[in-house]
Amino acid sequence: MMLHPLDAAIALEPAGEHCWRGRTSADWANFIGPYGGITAAQMLQAVLLHPQRLGDPVAFTVNFAAAVADGEFTVEARPARTNRSTQHWTVQMLQDGQAVTTGTVMTALRRPTWAATEAVMPQVPAPSEVVREKFRGVRWIERYDRRYLEGDVPRSWEGQDSGSSRTRSWVRDAPDRPLDFASLTAIADNFFPRIWLRRATQVPLGTVTLTVYYHAGAALLQSTGTGYVLCQAQGQGFRDGYLDQSGQLWNEAGDLLATTHQLMYYKE
Amino acid sequence: MMLHPLDAAIALEPAGEHCWRGRTSADWANFIGPYGGITAAQMLQAVLLHPQRLGDPVAFTVNFAAAVADGEFTVEARPARTNRSTQHWTVQMLQDGQAVTTGTVMTALRRPTWAATEAVMPQVPAPSEVVREKFRGVRWIERYDRRYLEGDVPRSWEGQDSGSSRTRSWVRDAPDRPLDFASLTAIADNFFPRIWLRRATQVPLGTVTLTVYYHAGAALLQSTGTGYVLCQAQGQGFRDGYLDQSGQLWNEAGDLLATTHQLMYYKE
Repeated sequence: MMLHPLDAAIALEPAGEHCWRGRTSADWANFIGPYGGITAAQMLQAVLLHPQRLGDPVAFTVNFAAAVADGEFTVEARPARTNRSTQHWTVQMLQDGQAVTTGTVMTALRRPTWAATEAVMPQVPAPSEVVREKFRGVRWIERYDRRYLEGDVPRSWEGQDSGSSRTRSWVRDAPDRPLDFASLTAIADNFFPRIWLRRATQVPLGTVTLTVYYHAGAALLQSTGTGYVLCQAQGQGFRDGYLDQSGQLWNEAGDLLATTHQLMYYKE
Repeated sequence: MMLHPLDAAIALEPAGEHCWRGRTSADWANFIGPYGGITAAQMLQAVLLHPQRLGDPVAFTVNFAAAVADGEFTVEARPARTNRSTQHWTVQMLQDGQAVTTGTVMTALRRPTWAATEAVMPQVPAPSEVVREKFRGVRWIERYDRRYLEGDVPRSWEGQDSGSSRTRSWVRDAPDRPLDFASLTAIADNFFPRIWLRRATQVPLGTVTLTVYYHAGAALLQSTGTGYVLCQAQGQGFRDGYLDQSGQLWNEAGDLLATTHQLMYYKE
């Protein structure tokens, strides 16, 4: 039986205390090196596998410090502080003994409380009513069934300013796969660069840091199953080589699964 | 001459390679231990003081792993990766040899590029037209001149649901002080808990992680001087003991200085 491409990519083997060994996967190739979302999922997976883990992820920040080279890598995941119901982790991906990413993870035991959602899912057509994007370019794009509702990839690259960088799209793994923390994390990075949408110009760029806050626990992810995730993101500021975006991810039932933010480097 | 309370709080002395020693400051006391914004500023300051630093902060994430006790602390700031124009740092605050915070900082040399702001400053009355909040409760509140435009602290705590957790306020240091990376970082945490606004109930809580993306470079901060910063934040999701907020900070001229996000623990 073939492993799902996501499971194959996040398969890590123990390599000493707090260390795991993995390798990049051609299925997730980006323009240079792997898709950042899969790198993030690999780092989170080291925490998820750790025998000392307490609870489920509530927050994760990964910094892309250098290009990840194709081939082997090591992930270090160390519990920095363990409390009664929360735990703080430092994580790092290394290649040739050098950090290619840094990051932190917080896990926690969660209990039901008063709840509310102010980031309400917008009213949009169901996934079945929307055309699936055609594959193009790099391999990792094929890892998602993506259906754009707003702010899709420009059809012409003639540098017109769209005025807004908001994207809304239904997204799920391709082939489909029940949602979990690793796949949700990878999906949080699935937005194409906001500045390409805004400027219709493919300036050179790369994500430098990504944060995910997990509103869903394991049970809610499980109930989402292989359904689609509505992904929304919009740029806030673009200046002196850096732009940020703020994003939200909901399941088809309208539950807010995660919020996510990232900062991206760009040139020109 | 007396040091400004912010400068007194972030005064760190060298304590070995990559290490600085500081102490908590009564001027910044919160309900338990110090205000999180000043702890964040102290951590950033260790990077700002580091002789190997390349460029100015572009992103900072701090995780509040345990209560900071009143007294001495050590901040470790280590360059994890240095590139041609960017640098990635891991930072940690220690007390009694145990991590009380973890974090990461990214610094960079920035160059002028195409620029735009989609998070446009809302039209609001000028600071001089708005009444200053009266001091109340804990000491750190007195460290800011804060003028609420929307979503101020509830006057009655009778548990009515406000339906929205959006706050807008003009804020500057008190006494006033020219804006820089340390003070902007502290201001990014100045919002009172979104769930108190939403529920008008003082449930127990605490920030567990805070991220700041710096859109302003040193020159823009300098030109902002001792002017007010318009601070906006709103909760996105509240569930199973954790809520997140998304925020924006502009100067009086309408320049987006920073965007900020945080996740907060709450009980009940």
